[in-house]
Formats: sequence, C-alpha cells, structure tokens
Amino acid sequence: MEFDTIAAISTPLGEGAIAIVRLSGDEAIQIADKIFKGVGGKRLKDVPSHTIHYGHIIDPSSGQTVEEVMVTVMRAPKTFTREDVVEINCHGGLVSVNRVLQLVLTNGARLAEPGEFTKRAFLNGRIDLSQAEAVMDLIRAKTDRAMNVALSQMEGRLSKLIRGLRQAILETLAHVEVNIDYPEYDDVEEMTHNMLIEKALYVRDEINKLLQTSQQGKILREGLATAIIGRPNVGKSSLLNSLAHENKAIVTDIPGTTRDVIEEYVNVRGVPLKLIDTAGIRETEDIVERIGVERSREVLKKADLILLVLNYSEELTPEDEQLFEAVKDMDVIVIVNKTDLPQKIDMERVRELAGNWPIVTTSLLEEKGIDELEEAISSLFFTGAVEANDLTYVSNSRHIALLHQAKQAVEEAISGIEAGVPIDIVQIDLTRTWELLGEIIGDTVHESLIDQLFSQFCLGK
Amino acid sequence: MEFDTIAAISTPLGEGAIAIVRLSGDEAIQIADKIFKGVGGKRLKDVPSHTIHYGHIIDPSSGQTVEEVMVTVMRAPKTFTREDVVEINCHGGLVSVNRVLQLVLTNGARLAEPGEFTKRAFLNGRIDLSQAEAVMDLIRAKTDRAMNVALSQMEGRLSKLIRGLRQAILETLAHVEVNIDYPEYDDVEEMTHNMLIEKALYVRDEINKLLQTSQQGKILREGLATAIIGRPNVGKSSLLNSLAHENKAIVTDIPGTTRDVIEEYVNVRGVPLKLIDTAGIRETEDIVERIGVERSREVLKKADLILLVLNYSEELTPEDEQLFEAVKDMDVIVIVNKTDLPQKIDMERVRELAGNWPIVTTSLLEEKGIDELEEAISSLFFTGAVEANDLTYVSNSRHIALLHQAKQAVEEAISGIEAGVPIDIVQIDLTRTWELLGEIIGDTVHESLIDQLFSQFCLGK
Repeated sequence: MEFDTIAAISTPLGEGAIAIVRLSGDEAIQIADKIFKGVGGKRLKDVPSHTIHYGHIIDPSSGQTVEEVMVTVMRAPKTFTREDVVEINCHGGLVSVNRVLQLVLTNGARLAEPGEFTKRAFLNGRIDLSQAEAVMDLIRAKTDRAMNVALSQMEGRLSKLIRGLRQAILETLAHVEVNIDYPEYDDVEEMTHNMLIEKALYVRDEINKLLQTSQQGKILREGLATAIIGRPNVGKSSLLNSLAHENKAIVTDIPGTTRDVIEEYVNVRGVPLKLIDTAGIRETEDIVERIGVERSREVLKKADLILLVLNYSEELTPEDEQLFEAVKDMDVIVIVNKTDLPQKIDMERVRELAGNWPIVTTSLLEEKGIDELEEAISSLFFTGAVEANDLTYVSNSRHIALLHQAKQAVEEAISGIEAGVPIDIVQIDLTRTWELLGEIIGDTVHESLIDQLFSQFCLGK
Repeated sequence: MEFDTIAAISTPLGEGAIAIVRLSGDEAIQIADKIFKGVGGKRLKDVPSHTIHYGHIIDPSSGQTVEEVMVTVMRAPKTFTREDVVEINCHGGLVSVNRVLQLVLTNGARLAEPGEFTKRAFLNGRIDLSQAEAVMDLIRAKTDRAMNVALSQMEGRLSKLIRGLRQAILETLAHVEVNIDYPEYDDVEEMTHNMLIEKALYVRDEINKLLQTSQQGKILREGLATAIIGRPNVGKSSLLNSLAHENKAIVTDIPGTTRDVIEEYVNVRGVPLKLIDTAGIRETEDIVERIGVERSREVLKKADLILLVLNYSEELTPEDEQLFEAVKDMDVIVIVNKTDLPQKIDMERVRELAGNWPIVTTSLLEEKGIDELEEAISSLFFTGAVEANDLTYVSNSRHIALLHQAKQAVEEAISGIEAGVPIDIVQIDLTRTWELLGEIIGDTVHESLIDQLFSQFCLGK
C-alpha cells in the first residue's frame, strides 16, 4: 500500500537525554534531507539502509541551526511500518524536539495521528490486529507480569491460537461441504453429525480456556482499582506508604494533560494496584467523612478491591460498622492495624462482620504484617493460577467481548447439531464463530473499528 | 582515557513509542551481545559502526524474551562520548525499558550517574565545560529564545569568546615577560604600562559586555519567577488562563519525583514565566488572604515579576493599598481589569501608587488588553535588547559568578597599573583573571566541581 508521509515525536514528553522525531512514508528520506546537514555535505538519500548519521537540523527558510542530531535511515520493507522510516534523535527537551517536528511538518510531512505508525504496520501486513494492540499494552504495562502477557501477545501467541481455532472451523466447514456434495456414502449423515459435534465442542473448550484467563489478564493489563478506606487515624496513609515503599510506586503521566489525571500504581507481587482517589485520601484522610456514606458508596463501586482499615487499639465504632455495610458484595481485605498498641478491638465481632473476607493484622509502624497483606492481595485474584511462563492470557476487553460472542455462536451450533437442525443452519453459526474470532486478529474487521482502535494509542507509535 | 562501561535510560520516563537504554564504554558492544539475539544469529561485535539492527533482548539466565528491539552500534571515537556506544531502542513503557536496563546492569555495565555520558564527552575532550552545561540547558529550555541561547553555547560561541579573552591575556603576560627579561630598551617601562592598561581595559570591557547579557540570559534559562496577586474576584485566575491559553503553557515534570514539584511555565513572547505557587493561587484565589501580608511578602520576595491585579469596577480598598505596599521595590506590572464594567476605580490614585510601574488596563472577559500586557512583560526585561540572532548570552549562574570575579580581578590589575604597583603584582591579578575565565570552559577547574556540576544533569545524558 502507499500512504503519505507521517511524522511525530516518538519519545515521552519531558526532560530526557534523547528525544526522537520519527517519519514514515515514501518521502520520509527526501523530507529529512531538506532539513539535514550532514558532515561533508552527505545526503541521506545516498546512505545505505539501517545506518545512523551525525549532523545538524537547519531551518531551510532562515539558514538557522536548530539542533545537533543523529539521524537513522531505514528503508522499506524491513522497518516497523514496512515503509521508509527516518528517526531524528535530538537532544532531549520539549522546545528543541518540537522545533524539529515543526520543520519536518512544514517540509512535507503530515502530523501522525495517535497509533498511526502501528496502524501502518498492520495495514501493510507486518502484524495482525491483536499484535498491534499488544504493542500498546506493552507500553502501558505496569508490572513484569503484565509486560509478559503483552509481549507474548505481540509475538503472536494469541494470534496463533486464534488462527488454529479458525483453521479447525474452516476445515470442518469444508468437510461438511464435501459430505453434502458427495452424499453417495451410506453413513454420511451420522459422520457429519459426529465430526461437527466433536469439532464444535473442541472449539468451545478452547475458547473457554482462554476466557478463564481473562479476569487476571484484564487486571494485569488495566490494574486493580483499589480504594483504601477507614476512619481517620487508623493508618490509611501509612498503609499507602508501606505499599508504595516496599514496592515501586509508578506514577503515570499521560503526556499533554494536566497533573490532575496522573494515575498512581503500586506494584504488589506483579499485580498493579491502581489507587482510587489517593489525592483525596491523602488530603482529607477520609473519603467517607468527606463525601458521606451514600456518595462514597458510588465512588467505591468503581473499585475492584477495597482495603478496609480498622484500629486494633480502639473499640469498633458505628462508623466502622457503616464501612462494612458500605462495601458489602465487594472484594474486601480487612486490615486490623496498630497491633503494637494494646488490643481494644473485639476481634470476634470483626470476624463476624468480615464473613468470608480475609483479615490481616498489621503494625505498619513496626512494619509487621505487610507480607501477609501482599499475599492476601495476590491470592485473592491469582489463586495459584498465574505462573510467569503460562503466558497466553486474554487481557483486552475487546478480545474478551469477541470471545464471549464466539462462545455463544459455537454453543448455538452445538445445540443445533444436538437438536438435529438442518446442516446449513449449523453452518451459519459456525461461520459466525469463525468471523468473530477473525475480528480479534483483524482478518474480518471494519475500517471504522480500526480507526477507533488505533486512535487510543499514544502519539508517535 | 579509559573508563568502565556505563548504562542508563536516556529517554524521559513515561508512556511513549520509543524508549532508549544507552551504554557507553569499552565493553558496551560485548555486554549488549550477551543479551541481544539478532536475526540469523548476527553478533553486534561483527557489524559495521553506525548501523542499526533488529532483534530481541533475551534474559541469558532464563532464556526468556524480554523485548523486541532495534540496536544501534556506534564505535569510538565518532560518538557522543568518544567511546563505544550502544543504544537499545525498546518499545516505550516503564516496565519493559527497566527490565532491559536491569539485564544490561547484571551483564557487566554500571548504572550511569546523572550527566555521566556528557561528563565523558567532556573528559574525553569532545566538548568543553560550558558546552557540556549548554547540553543540559538545551534540554531544559522552555522557549525558542532560551533554546537558541543554549544551542549557540553548545556550538561553542561562548567558549570561543572566552578563549579569545584568555589568549589576549596570555599574550600580554608573555609580552610583559619579554619586556622584563630584555630591559635594554629605554622606554620599556612606559611601553609595558601602556600595553598592559590597554589590554586590561579591553578584557574588562568584553567581560562587561557579556555580563550585560546575563540578566536576560538567566531569565531565558531559568524562567521569570512570576506571582499574580490581587484581592479575590479581581480576575487572577482569568489572567492565568489568558496567558496560558494565548500562549502554550508548558508543564515540566522532573522524572523520578512526585507531582508536587511539577513546575508550570507560560511562554510570553519567548520569555518563560515560571508561575509561583499557582496551585495556591488557583485554590485559594488569594495568597495574601491565605497566609497574611507578612508571610506573603516573604513568598513574593522570590518573584522576579509581580502582576498586581485591581478591579476597574470597584473602588480601591485598603487591601489593594496594602498589596502595593507589600511589593514596593520589586518589578511590578499593575493590571486594572474589568474595563467592560462601569468605572469606579480612582485611576489618579492608581497612577500615584504605581509610580514608575507600567499600568495596563484589561478586560480579560472580552479578551482586551492582553497584547499590551504581554508587551509590558516583554519590554520590562528585554528593552529592545534581545534579538533572535544576537545569541552570545551568558545565562548560567556559575558563568555569571566567574565573570564577576574575573571582572574584579582585572579591575584590580587596572588599579594596580594606574597606581604604579610593581609589575609582578599586576601579573598575579591578570593570571587570576585568566584562571577564572578558564573555569568557565573547564580548562582550570577542580575535579570535585566537575562531579558536582554533572550531578545536576538528568539521568541518561
């Protein structure tokens, strides 16, 4: 395929040693040559592919030097996009890299849309859709486990599995056609029936296996939305700090937006906890007191995990009991903190209120019980199921939704076969299964969906 | 020189399309080869210099694939550090780039200190100290003007000027030596005196010229610390928004730190305004009300520029007069806002209070007067003096301090010559001048200072 030449800043915005302006398209090298002045008048159009060159970026309209750069030239097709790619490595810094980008744009390139480089890799056939989506997951991965899932998907493990299932369905459909076309054999009906049911059950079981990984996969991908609640002075901030200190707190700044949307993640044994409204918790020390039980219940609904903190050295209060009430039906870990002080809390009552929820006693002051807490968090969502090497997780909501639909379609086929409905009706259901699976890897997918998917990418990828 | 092999992440932390792990040192290529698996078993040690290669990063201890990468190999001496340099271009994302860095470190590299790559470029003689410092300024530049200053310094314009002055001093000292050694001529004393005074005056004048650029240079480099003050509801937030909206507000996130230290800059005609305590202003709408006149006076002392906002549609209040009192002796622009409403303010009294300060009337609601305000800000600090192409500014506090000391030393030499003190005393002052200028470009500078200077750099540069 042929497209116009696109350009964008491909490194995160911020202060750093290196910032990269990336170009892709037929005119990438020609445009770069207009603004690049190499040593001894060297032209980029003359250099071999996959080489890097020192020089300066000059504004051709003023003759002014804009940056000192290293320029990498990579010719199609062995590139990220399968097009000619030029990467201009600038000294870091917002202003200088922006000026280089502006020059590239005024000299013939178009500003790339978010994800447009990866979209071209897809449209030019280098990767399929689930691999493209994994590129973005890899960038956004908050923990090693999440990264492994994305990496495995990027390398095509999920694609391979899906392709296998589609191939099985296709072969089955072909067999059925053959059997229908050559009905000279006696037992053709029974043979067709047996083969169909066997293959359909196989496909359903494989889809089920994939779907079983989806809850964990989604948590790894998107983080476990976690709220820390409790009365004032029970140790909520200490808990936050312990988790953030023991592990590495990752602050994600979405480039181009204000500080308000920065999200904080705490990595607990490979599980990324996305802390809800931590700013609020830090400032007011109490989400419930601040906004009332009713409204906080709404906020808390967004949480996948509630850490409910109690004070070991005080008696349970009506507020404590209200908190238990506010989070019923949710995933909760009860933390009884301050075991360094004399016990006043009625643990019998706590166990009664907690029901099946795990209870962990801690002294955050003396750094006791934190291991147990992390174990509780980890095992609540990954009950021994997650192994580092068992990597074919489904983590993307789009994939999960399609798998559910595919499962439904294949189950309809199975019921149909069992009820003895005509073969051509069963064929329709199986074809639908085949199509739905194809949407995951982008073989059967609408252009508008593709546009929408890639628009969620970050700029420059 | 020979050093161990260092490594660091050289792109800003955050989500982006590309992240780079950079290695520099004798073993850079060897270490990269331990974890790189290229296509067809290609080894980096065998590839030509300045080429880029596709492959995977593999953890040699587990055999697990960690990343899909492009690796650039650049052999000494034509590199940023004059050592062998390897750059591993990863998919963006915190987790994956950190894992690649960890692998590099466990396979023989040492984590680079902040600025250590640039330090090696300096120690290996590729750039001098003022050029190295300019590299960092370029990264931190907040506006085009600031970037031009840094770029010119990086290209060695300041170095060249300083070297010229040092050469002049050196030649003068040599001449004096000759004159002292061969005192057979009659007028040797007068000749020496005349030449010395002439050269010393020349050096002093040149230093003065440089120092004259320093106020502007420093503002361009570090931003103009600006406080917006005024009673509640006069339009402080609107003013902030107008400035930020008309121009581009730049939020600088220092990697590795929390959101609390994010600084906001507003670019007003190339002048970066660093807004003091904007969060406070935004939240409380009034720094003076919040912390009292006495304490706010202390906060305001840190400002280079005060924007004092009054309400055109209200009479002056005692609080207004207190504000004028609080910022006397500072650089102030008085803004009389809300001219869209009927006048109630006594402009005569405003002019009396303002004295020599510029007064700008605005209606921020109707977007009137903003141009005039920007003009006032720009001309207060750059009275026609800054031209985009007049680029030899001194902007670095260290350079400015050294120039002041050098000026003092050369002035002592001048007084000495004029007072007829012995030549060898004058020689000491001139030698001191020569040494002080040398410290700017790093020719005569202590190792501890160098360590301290580079430690202010960002990681990976």
